[in-house]
Amino acid sequence: MIRAAIVGASGYVGGELLRLLLGHPSIDVTQITSESRAGQPAHLAHPNLRDRTTLRFCAPNELDSTDMLFLATPHGVASRRIDEFAQKADRIVDLSADFRLHDPECYARWYGHEHPCRDWLSRFVYGLPEIHREELRHTRYASGVGCNASVSLLALLPLYRRDLVRETIVDIKVGSSEGGSRPTIGSHHPERAGVVRTFRPTGHRHQAELLQELGLPTEAHRLHLTVTSVGIVRGALATCHCLLTKPLDLLELRRLYRTAYHEEPFIRLVQARSGVHRFPEPKILSGSNYCDIGFAVDPLGVRAVVVGAIDNLMKGAAGTAVQTMNLMCGLPETEGLEHPGLHPL
Amino acid sequence: MIRAAIVGASGYVGGELLRLLLGHPSIDVTQITSESRAGQPAHLAHPNLRDRTTLRFCAPNELDSTDMLFLATPHGVASRRIDEFAQKADRIVDLSADFRLHDPECYARWYGHEHPCRDWLSRFVYGLPEIHREELRHTRYASGVGCNASVSLLALLPLYRRDLVRETIVDIKVGSSEGGSRPTIGSHHPERAGVVRTFRPTGHRHQAELLQELGLPTEAHRLHLTVTSVGIVRGALATCHCLLTKPLDLLELRRLYRTAYHEEPFIRLVQARSGVHRFPEPKILSGSNYCDIGFAVDPLGVRAVVVGAIDNLMKGAAGTAVQTMNLMCGLPETEGLEHPGLHPL
Amino acid sequence: MIRAAIVGASGYVGGELLRLLLGHPSIDVTQITSESRAGQPAHLAHPNLRDRTTLRFCAPNELDSTDMLFLATPHGVASRRIDEFAQKADRIVDLSADFRLHDPECYARWYGHEHPCRDWLSRFVYGLPEIHREELRHTRYASGVGCNASVSLLALLPLYRRDLVRETIVDIKVGSSEGGSRPTIGSHHPERAGVVRTFRPTGHRHQAELLQELGLPTEAHRLHLTVTSVGIVRGALATCHCLLTKPLDLLELRRLYRTAYHEEPFIRLVQARSGVHRFPEPKILSGSNYCDIGFAVDPLGVRAVVVGAIDNLMKGAAGTAVQTMNLMCGLPETEGLEHPGLHPL
Amino acid sequence: MIRAAIVGASGYVGGELLRLLLGHPSIDVTQITSESRAGQPAHLAHPNLRDRTTLRFCAPNELDSTDMLFLATPHGVASRRIDEFAQKADRIVDLSADFRLHDPECYARWYGHEHPCRDWLSRFVYGLPEIHREELRHTRYASGVGCNASVSLLALLPLYRRDLVRETIVDIKVGSSEGGSRPTIGSHHPERAGVVRTFRPTGHRHQAELLQELGLPTEAHRLHLTVTSVGIVRGALATCHCLLTKPLDLLELRRLYRTAYHEEPFIRLVQARSGVHRFPEPKILSGSNYCDIGFAVDPLGVRAVVVGAIDNLMKGAAGTAVQTMNLMCGLPETEGLEHPGLHPL
Repeated sequence: MIRAAIVGASGYVGGELLRLLLGHPSIDVTQITSESRAGQPAHLAHPNLRDRTTLRFCAPNELDSTDMLFLATPHGVASRRIDEFAQKADRIVDLSADFRLHDPECYARWYGHEHPCRDWLSRFVYGLPEIHREELRHTRYASGVGCNASVSLLALLPLYRRDLVRETIVDIKVGSSEGGSRPTIGSHHPERAGVVRTFRPTGHRHQAELLQELGLPTEAHRLHLTVTSVGIVRGALATCHCLLTKPLDLLELRRLYRTAYHEEPFIRLVQARSGVHRFPEPKILSGSNYCDIGFAVDPLGVRAVVVGAIDNLMKGAAGTAVQTMNLMCGLPETEGLEHPGLHPL
Repeated sequence: MIRAAIVGASGYVGGELLRLLLGHPSIDVTQITSESRAGQPAHLAHPNLRDRTTLRFCAPNELDSTDMLFLATPHGVASRRIDEFAQKADRIVDLSADFRLHDPECYARWYGHEHPCRDWLSRFVYGLPEIHREELRHTRYASGVGCNASVSLLALLPLYRRDLVRETIVDIKVGSSEGGSRPTIGSHHPERAGVVRTFRPTGHRHQAELLQELGLPTEAHRLHLTVTSVGIVRGALATCHCLLTKPLDLLELRRLYRTAYHEEPFIRLVQARSGVHRFPEPKILSGSNYCDIGFAVDPLGVRAVVVGAIDNLMKGAAGTAVQTMNLMCGLPETEGLEHPGLHPL
Repeated sequence: MIRAAIVGASGYVGGELLRLLLGHPSIDVTQITSESRAGQPAHLAHPNLRDRTTLRFCAPNELDSTDMLFLATPHGVASRRIDEFAQKADRIVDLSADFRLHDPECYARWYGHEHPCRDWLSRFVYGLPEIHREELRHTRYASGVGCNASVSLLALLPLYRRDLVRETIVDIKVGSSEGGSRPTIGSHHPERAGVVRTFRPTGHRHQAELLQELGLPTEAHRLHLTVTSVGIVRGALATCHCLLTKPLDLLELRRLYRTAYHEEPFIRLVQARSGVHRFPEPKILSGSNYCDIGFAVDPLGVRAVVVGAIDNLMKGAAGTAVQTMNLMCGLPETEGLEHPGLHPL
Repeated sequence: MIRAAIVGASGYVGGELLRLLLGHPSIDVTQITSESRAGQPAHLAHPNLRDRTTLRFCAPNELDSTDMLFLATPHGVASRRIDEFAQKADRIVDLSADFRLHDPECYARWYGHEHPCRDWLSRFVYGLPEIHREELRHTRYASGVGCNASVSLLALLPLYRRDLVRETIVDIKVGSSEGGSRPTIGSHHPERAGVVRTFRPTGHRHQAELLQELGLPTEAHRLHLTVTSVGIVRGALATCHCLLTKPLDLLELRRLYRTAYHEEPFIRLVQARSGVHRFPEPKILSGSNYCDIGFAVDPLGVRAVVVGAIDNLMKGAAGTAVQTMNLMCGLPETEGLEHPGLHPL
């Protein structure tokens, strides 16, 4: 059994990670830390885990050595304390945004301040197995992924790898769990329920990850990202409007994606011709690690619409982190991630 | 008092129209017709109108002469029976899609069949007062508007009139009332609740209205429309990604829209710098005739994001039809349309 | 025109009151106060009122004399400052819970502390026109109503007046706007969306109003109240399980309610035999001042189930307060309260 | 491996059963039948199972012999064809209502017609392991449970076994999946979204199961059941208002339930003193087989409010059926039922 600990386990990503690790046959969760909830049993923060574990949160400074350390702390914590964490564990997956970008200048531009430990940036592998599977098998340090970035990347990669896109607008619809577990006036139920709120029309930070992983220059202005809140809790849908460099028809598009993804365990192509479920939808993915991808092309073939759906806490955060851990530890890649999602929901 | 009748009054648009006309100080609703509900009291279809009217649905063939006739029938009915309807009333507003397009070729291309009475097409004014106010004051025949078209048009017009856009992607999010009152497997609550479903990635018919009213050639492929269902009942949000012909900053954009719309009674510009409500949201517009418009520009000014929100049954259908009737009948334009919407909701 | 001011106008009840008074033909809103938002325009708190008023919140101590004063402050404020408020206005409606109970002992038992100005308690009339219409026409001081109390009272009164009930369990389902505009962990959207949460199984304070207005002794233990949160924003449904003193059939029950309520402008009996809308539902009442009431009896006639539905911010708070004001000021009782509600919603 | 087949596998209960059996380590699903979908792949009906199985629905008359047969057909089918089904399989679990009641008179009274094969009624064990565990280990035929009945039974049993209740009102709130997969006007999203609709105030058929399993005479009128639809898809919450025969305090109540349930693998007592999750809530149970139970007592101890929450498709249908199968087949009782549910959701 591999021993694992979670730093910052009382938030939503930490809780989802805990759920997955408790159900993982090769993992023994030894510690979960929380500043605000130290001493409390896990299920006070994560009521679905009632009677599933006797673990209690401990204070961050009580962290012991372990095999595998997950950091689910607010952005900024991991980068300030990475040396300390590295002494506690052989392997680290940091789910925050601190080590996703490799270029310190890029980090400074998008996050508004210098990175506090620039030399560590190059030691982290961007933790999306569909792009960096082999590197992840051999690294000791991996980042997590931005939820909006991961679904967009998986939807766009096959087209960008073939250089088929001249300009893309990614219009993402997200649920409220993306905002974390701390209440604000914007997350107050009477204000948040039933909204369709384009709250981040430009400038979303996950755009930096997208540019990096698609291999585009960070000054590039041919990839646009807009995020709209909708009234769900879990889930993200990326509607990617790709203006193509040359016309494509639907069959070519499907072939392209099938070729790219037919061996991927967590990517499913949705291509029904009729019925309600002709396109991907996040709600049936709740609790699953799938990214469902569908597509359409306009009659002249100049715009492809690629639609990707994920559970933002799973494939967009904790699920991908466990998948990454499986690779880092030599475990079967899908272990502990078998839940298919629910229907109806 | 002006006498008014509604043909096809048992659907959602017909019901909203009935609600508005019952509360309109200058209108006397004399008849409402319905094939399926003839003989039933109005409130069986529209429970909010219980105790508000003693009207019962009559059969379509019982329609008497009237001053003002509203057609809220399924697409295809009005065009087949327009001669008959024209004999019953001085003025007609047809809320279906039958008389929105002026060009018979364009109609045939988007609707897949020849228009059954092409000569009538030129007699109808497209019923969006913000574009055709003066013509509407003098016409006897006006169309309604497509809900997705109306919100997109209002969001895009100021930019297109100045020729500032080289390409636009309109990503619309809509509620379930757009689909009408007839149940399908796609509208079954367990399937439809909580969805984020990009069900019409390309080819939405409202695109034809958009092209016509923006003065773009119908072969143009620089304006793209995609529609995604979200889990609300009322409301439509159009996130318009406008790739600009020359850089604009936020101040210029605001000035442009203020100039274009400062006298419009039903367009509000949303430009708060902080708070929850910095951008338009459909939910607070339920029951109101407003179109709220907000905007953002990316740092280099190459993409403007213009966001428009409406209640699809009001500004996207029945509200605009009443506004159009007010103009056609010489009534104050805002009469009967004063409801401000609700918050919270 | 009657001048009116609202103290505590930035909350949800205050905002709804402001919306109603701005649309009221006999009222001129002169001031709105808010501690936290003094200086801000009204629409920052109430986005539906954008472009509908140029009013700004002023500080509570800037309150001028006025004809009609509404207090929409948190519980405890009105009773501490009632002498001061009484000097500012001829007439006062206090929407908080401070002056709803007449008996100081009863107040102390339910609210856990002595009432700070017991002598004022008897000067206030309980502001539910369906019970106290005549007294309200002649009082200068009226309370508002508890939202759960008002819907339960209207559902139960006809049975209790005839002494037909031996024991009642009122099972109320409410939306999130009942909790007010301040965010808490319990109102955080990911926690609150989609809940069915029996958060107050016993001991809800509105029970005291119910007992008082039904004329039951406050020690009575034959009337039970339980409140469950559901995932809506507006609305309250009271399912009243009445164990009867003698068997009744459905016809008798209907006759009883028709007799009691046939002249009430805001009570509608719902008694369709078929269709979707056979029983009251809060969602179609959003923005309306109606209380819809329906009923059923079990085969042996020993249990009547009376179901009442309201918009908690309207008939449960601001709407009833305006209705009360209309009576106090000699205005038509329904003035400013004509909105029928929306369908679908 | 035990071979299992599902008759009527295209509905919601059938789909949930299929999901569970596909993930069950001791089961090999050999056939799934559907009249309407014969020939289609499973994921057209159950999109969460895309890429999880290559099974296709076959016609009911193609059913082969198997070890374990699940009947998830509409009510009435199993009882008409039970002899035929019994020849196909050693063991049968019928999830419909056909074999839940043992008394033919009782069946006729609640279902309005004679049972078509009365002699089979006594051969079926009521499939709620918490009541009939030992019998289920030795039976070849078991019924499923009514979702509303199962949650109510589990909430009420400890009190009824001690004879502590004189009268109970069970007020149940349910999601839309209880109505099955066939669209109706009542399940049409614009009509169904956001409702709080007490659609079955009296006379719900699950009441018959409740009376049978609590050992009450079917003429008893001391147990009342009312069902209200709320705007969720999955989940049922039973708020049980128990009027007690003698006063109890909270500690006694807790002890009673702990004693009754401390060895039950799928019953959890919720007894937090603070925090958001002090009472059971169905939404965190989606996909899990738990029944969460909490309670409160009014100050005088005359009314206990026992609250039970389940996922109606799991503990209320397919989950309990798998638990029953595990017992019938000598498998570990919790096998294949380990999912803890999700938070947030």
